[in-house]
Amino acid sequence: MPIPLQNDCFLRACLRQRTPHTPLWLMRQAGRYLPEYRATREKAGNSFMGLATNVAYATEVTLQPLERFPLDAAILFSDILTVPDAMGLGLSFGAGEGPRFAHPVRDEAAVAALQVPDLNRLRYVFDAVASIRRALVTRDAQGREVARVPLIGFSGSPWTLACYMVEGGGSSDYRLVKSMLYARPDLMQRILQVNADAVTAYLNAQVDAGAQALMIFDSWGGVLADGAFQRFSLDYTRRVVAGLQREKNGQRIPVIVFTKGGGLWLQELAGCGADVVGLDWTVHLGRARAAVGERVALQGNLDPMVLFAPPEVVAREAVAVLDAFGPPQRADGGWDGHVFNLGHGINQHTPPEHVSALVEAVHSHSRRQRQAPAKR
Amino acid sequence: MPIPLQNDCFLRACLRQRTPHTPLWLMRQAGRYLPEYRATREKAGNSFMGLATNVAYATEVTLQPLERFPLDAAILFSDILTVPDAMGLGLSFGAGEGPRFAHPVRDEAAVAALQVPDLNRLRYVFDAVASIRRALVTRDAQGREVARVPLIGFSGSPWTLACYMVEGGGSSDYRLVKSMLYARPDLMQRILQVNADAVTAYLNAQVDAGAQALMIFDSWGGVLADGAFQRFSLDYTRRVVAGLQREKNGQRIPVIVFTKGGGLWLQELAGCGADVVGLDWTVHLGRARAAVGERVALQGNLDPMVLFAPPEVVAREAVAVLDAFGPPQRADGGWDGHVFNLGHGINQHTPPEHVSALVEAVHSHSRRQRQAPAKR
Repeated sequence: MPIPLQNDCFLRACLRQRTPHTPLWLMRQAGRYLPEYRATREKAGNSFMGLATNVAYATEVTLQPLERFPLDAAILFSDILTVPDAMGLGLSFGAGEGPRFAHPVRDEAAVAALQVPDLNRLRYVFDAVASIRRALVTRDAQGREVARVPLIGFSGSPWTLACYMVEGGGSSDYRLVKSMLYARPDLMQRILQVNADAVTAYLNAQVDAGAQALMIFDSWGGVLADGAFQRFSLDYTRRVVAGLQREKNGQRIPVIVFTKGGGLWLQELAGCGADVVGLDWTVHLGRARAAVGERVALQGNLDPMVLFAPPEVVAREAVAVLDAFGPPQRADGGWDGHVFNLGHGINQHTPPEHVSALVEAVHSHSRRQRQAPAKR
Repeated sequence: MPIPLQNDCFLRACLRQRTPHTPLWLMRQAGRYLPEYRATREKAGNSFMGLATNVAYATEVTLQPLERFPLDAAILFSDILTVPDAMGLGLSFGAGEGPRFAHPVRDEAAVAALQVPDLNRLRYVFDAVASIRRALVTRDAQGREVARVPLIGFSGSPWTLACYMVEGGGSSDYRLVKSMLYARPDLMQRILQVNADAVTAYLNAQVDAGAQALMIFDSWGGVLADGAFQRFSLDYTRRVVAGLQREKNGQRIPVIVFTKGGGLWLQELAGCGADVVGLDWTVHLGRARAAVGERVALQGNLDPMVLFAPPEVVAREAVAVLDAFGPPQRADGGWDGHVFNLGHGINQHTPPEHVSALVEAVHSHSRRQRQAPAKR
């Protein structure tokens, strides 16, 4: 018998069900902007993978933002690139730099050698998921065991993984991966199919371990040309979504797909099988809702740089995002779904007290929105 | 009496008039991918600004791509950041790096000190324009003086200049400039107004010197949130466009506005007063034409990374872009305008012979398109 959720707003909004307020969580909410995160990371030898592969540390940092802020979901502390690391590509994070692969995939032989990794190499992730689920259990006012909030598992999309696997790290122009895509689409498609199979198995194993929602980060889908996006990013994301376990213990496992820079492809994203489409700050939430709000919930989309403005500006901009979506209840009595988030990961230099102002503004204004008469 | 153009396809397409083929030019067509450019740059002490400020060198490199490829327009060899350099911010280009300003604009005092620069400090640009116009003159088969192709002048948009002025160079997250935008919109608006006045005067002086079309590069408009884009980028671009001289010697001076990542704001861009809207590769040209093709011409939008594929793939992808737009003649007898271009500057590692394949494919396929019966 699973332990009931104390706060299920996030899951309900993902499924376009009534909620008392708009739930919010923040991409990269467990991260360097928190002094307590930096302290734990010190203990782990100042290594990102040292943190992510240690179940106790991963659990500790996952819960840190929840101690500070009344966020509506927890997200597994991990990286989008664990899968290619498990394929043997040798992931590392240099000091102050992005991810690097020691063995990038750049020729026919390297592509041919790629395989879906043994999931035992990702055991540390599943162990962390189970550990975090246990750590989220508390007791309510009546002394009953409850889980504070749901836990989100995640992975990079097949295309986004391929970008890093071919480039060997971040890139400003994606020259190597796009050269392969245009010159050798057969090689690119083999990489993407291996990635899709691996990501599907990886996310399902996270569900087995206890993940209650899944997010696919297609961080670099937006660098593709129209046409190439559909063929090399969205099509493989769709294959992953189609292979996911969507229910456990009678509870739907919502899937969120986020393509940064994907606003132009909103209609197609809404048809990829996900319950929720994540949006960056370039999209007007009201227009997005009008276009696809009856098919999927929307997640987003405050510019993370707003958090560098004074708290009153943070609050005002958060209200503007909520008002752009509008009150989620529709005139016909149904509900559309909005999960408040940033349009990208929170910046490491963000003042934590500005995050407090954000959470307070989202919760209080979204409660007020639900008092207003429903609009068409 | 002005010297007539031998090839006016580019100007005609900008103005949505009949053309025998789809004209093409390439952003950064005079650049490092050409060995002859690198040779001239060596002569100029391997300095970008050494090239740009020397009229003879600037003329030489502007014409280099036209000697290799039958391009339909020349573009002034210069940089988008000459205006803030003339304001005294101290522009430099490190080896293999992007632009840097020695004196970024980050506080109230620096903003208050900003002024529209004395245009005499940009004399080298206007002298280059006049020199290039002279260098473009040739004789036709009948021995008459003709100008080979029109010359495009350009500047960065007020917002894009502000990004570099505040950040002091390129940025991955635009934290400083967005912090100012959200925390001190009054300061940001003063920078943008000074920039708009300066860019307007600068572009009009380019027209006086002989520029036959103008392009405004809003390279970083696409990093702004919906709402902020309209207020801090588009509004100031519109002020510039409204202040431009649009006719000279009875010839319309077309204005092109290009917001990289601006596809979601196409309708608003089409209403900014420009004759042509530039698009990056994320936009489907056929859908863009259906939305705004009766109001503005469109420029774009091949992914520059396609040029790393074999020539036959380059040709196939160029045909796909032309076919996405469709034959420019409409069933009602009118013409919509398409200027073929990349969706961003050509990459420095591009093989020049792949550019030949591109130009050939665009010219030949677009001639074939004009043979086909017109479609609605």
